[in-house]
Amino acid sequence: MTKLQEKWNELADVKDVLAGRDWFMGTSGNLAIKVSDAPLQFLVTASGKDKYKRTDEDFLLVDAAGEPVEATHLKPSAETLLHSAIYNKTGAGCSLHVHTVANNVLSEHYGRDGKIDFKGQELIKAFGLWDEDAVLSIPIIANHAHIPRLAEDFEEHLTADKGAVLIRNHGITIWGKDAFEAKKLLEASEFLFQYQLALLQIK
Amino acid sequence: MTKLQEKWNELADVKDVLAGRDWFMGTSGNLAIKVSDAPLQFLVTASGKDKYKRTDEDFLLVDAAGEPVEATHLKPSAETLLHSAIYNKTGAGCSLHVHTVANNVLSEHYGRDGKIDFKGQELIKAFGLWDEDAVLSIPIIANHAHIPRLAEDFEEHLTADKGAVLIRNHGITIWGKDAFEAKKLLEASEFLFQYQLALLQIK
Amino acid sequence: MTKLQEKWNELADVKDVLAGRDWFMGTSGNLAIKVSDAPLQFLVTASGKDKYKRTDEDFLLVDAAGEPVEATHLKPSAETLLHSAIYNKTGAGCSLHVHTVANNVLSEHYGRDGKIDFKGQELIKAFGLWDEDAVLSIPIIANHAHIPRLAEDFEEHLTADKGAVLIRNHGITIWGKDAFEAKKLLEASEFLFQYQLALLQIK
Amino acid sequence: MTKLQEKWNELADVKDVLAGRDWFMGTSGNLAIKVSDAPLQFLVTASGKDKYKRTDEDFLLVDAAGEPVEATHLKPSAETLLHSAIYNKTGAGCSLHVHTVANNVLSEHYGRDGKIDFKGQELIKAFGLWDEDAVLSIPIIANHAHIPRLAEDFEEHLTADKGAVLIRNHGITIWGKDAFEAKKLLEASEFLFQYQLALLQIK
Repeated sequence: MTKLQEKWNELADVKDVLAGRDWFMGTSGNLAIKVSDAPLQFLVTASGKDKYKRTDEDFLLVDAAGEPVEATHLKPSAETLLHSAIYNKTGAGCSLHVHTVANNVLSEHYGRDGKIDFKGQELIKAFGLWDEDAVLSIPIIANHAHIPRLAEDFEEHLTADKGAVLIRNHGITIWGKDAFEAKKLLEASEFLFQYQLALLQIK
Repeated sequence: MTKLQEKWNELADVKDVLAGRDWFMGTSGNLAIKVSDAPLQFLVTASGKDKYKRTDEDFLLVDAAGEPVEATHLKPSAETLLHSAIYNKTGAGCSLHVHTVANNVLSEHYGRDGKIDFKGQELIKAFGLWDEDAVLSIPIIANHAHIPRLAEDFEEHLTADKGAVLIRNHGITIWGKDAFEAKKLLEASEFLFQYQLALLQIK
Repeated sequence: MTKLQEKWNELADVKDVLAGRDWFMGTSGNLAIKVSDAPLQFLVTASGKDKYKRTDEDFLLVDAAGEPVEATHLKPSAETLLHSAIYNKTGAGCSLHVHTVANNVLSEHYGRDGKIDFKGQELIKAFGLWDEDAVLSIPIIANHAHIPRLAEDFEEHLTADKGAVLIRNHGITIWGKDAFEAKKLLEASEFLFQYQLALLQIK
Repeated sequence: MTKLQEKWNELADVKDVLAGRDWFMGTSGNLAIKVSDAPLQFLVTASGKDKYKRTDEDFLLVDAAGEPVEATHLKPSAETLLHSAIYNKTGAGCSLHVHTVANNVLSEHYGRDGKIDFKGQELIKAFGLWDEDAVLSIPIIANHAHIPRLAEDFEEHLTADKGAVLIRNHGITIWGKDAFEAKKLLEASEFLFQYQLALLQIK
């Protein structure tokens, strides 16, 4: 199995698990995985696909600028620039952009604060925060219809090899060293969002 | 594979995905797909079926008036007149009528306004709304036990080839150019309803 | 296939669908289906089973009094007396007793009223209520640890061949002419409970 | 089939059902099952695994102190000390540590009370409480990053062969005589937590 095929399968496996949770409603969401560093190339979701089936056209290979490596009728996802920024600025190997009800509602509720903080939660350990007083702070940036403008704001938060950014009413983008870590961070943050949403609904 | 068989399979696939989300509780809901334009014929759900199994009697072919094309022991769904209106008035190729908790609760909560508006939500792009200030407005009409009366109010909103209408405490009806688009619009609107419901539950 | 085997399969199919929705948490819930009228015999869930697997010991045949027809190491479910009352007092062919979060929460919230009413909801049609002003009223009775005492209160509501009764913090019991109708009524009422719960959580 | 293999399969079956409910988000959660009493040995989840697949490296055999019985590249889960305490102090045969949104939110909401009480709920019978006035009281202890410190507080509640303890914002740990009972108690308590959360969200 080639490196490309291996990475394709890893990404398709993550896609299938997330689709099983209905995290790709309305063809939203997209995923990427790095295939090589020199030259920088990564697989990214083809635009406008329903992610509930597994097909040979789910992903395509793009370069550092997010342009297709080979001529193809497939179009890279509109958010490819976000994934591209991640691989250009960090050592991450996989990145996921997903809309869930909880992550969108909290991005709206805490949008004016520009961030949401989690403290005293066991699951922040997924982000490598082991101290009892540690705080997981996830930034929330404004949404822009113009993706290059959005990518600009987004890049300011690409300061580590793993992390997460909420875009207001436009889902979460998360990155980690490989598919395993990216999925782990996505699940841990979704758990924290669902927790916080349920707690807010009591108060 | 004939056109009829092809359309049958497309509709059955959509049915199975929606059934997997429990969007057909209590035998509610029905689906339709256009098979030909001249004469106008479409497949529609047979009345009173449990939609959790896939059978040869899930759908039947009806004409522009919603009457069975061939003699059959199957009865077209009670809401066939809504689907019929869609194919007579618009260029849509597929239409879906589905009850979810979120769409019914919001149809009640915003019922007096006669509509529910979404703004600043990334997912309204599914409806072709790309501007930053765009508003997705979904009308809410009163429910009537008498379907021809209901169809009359419903028809007023059939002004485009894709769209959605909420009937108060009687689910959503959505239409698009084909099964892919209709399902996409249904998922995007359901996401928005679940979002709005969760947000209202905080405040 | 014998009548007994046929009924067993029908009940097992319903069980599997409900288990897929996690409506049998903590080995709660039980199901029954009538096999013959003279003598009255019905299949009922064996006590204490995990309902997430399908086995040859999921159900056992009992008589009008709820006693096993043949010697067996299986014990009829503790609520067999409720099912027995249904088949003795009505023409029902299938009955289901299920705990869901929504049905238990509403049985507590409306417990003092002794009932919960639904009006203007499309899904009450599942209960045969087609008028625009029709009201579906589901009684709520007090729970008793002593099942014969509980069965006594329960029997007062066995006035039709289909119906539903909530026991406070002890799930719903629903009955209909066959497995199809009982499942349809259970789904419709669960939808209505989830609707009402979500609406109460807004206000 | 050896005793070890049999216990492995039982635990893997429980793991698969819980994974199907997304109760292991972000690689959280771990499970254990006793294999022998003299010497005391039990299978426990290997650290850091994604629990959505079934593999030959999901569990490893450890001794009374929670140390691997054989040399292995696998590391016992961080919470192995909790499981170890259970088998050393009680007659339990299986123990489960799981994070759910409901159990974490309630551990926070009732954290200052040091416990959460359930009364008048049918499902507390799963814990062997059959009286009409019986109260199921689940203790809530503070979380500590240092697991030996946490285990110390935890041990105080190991006074019976079955039971449950909530750790504040760190999930539930539950134990029972075998995999069947531990899963039953976990499901019953999760149902009660979801019930209580929904009820609090109304008020």
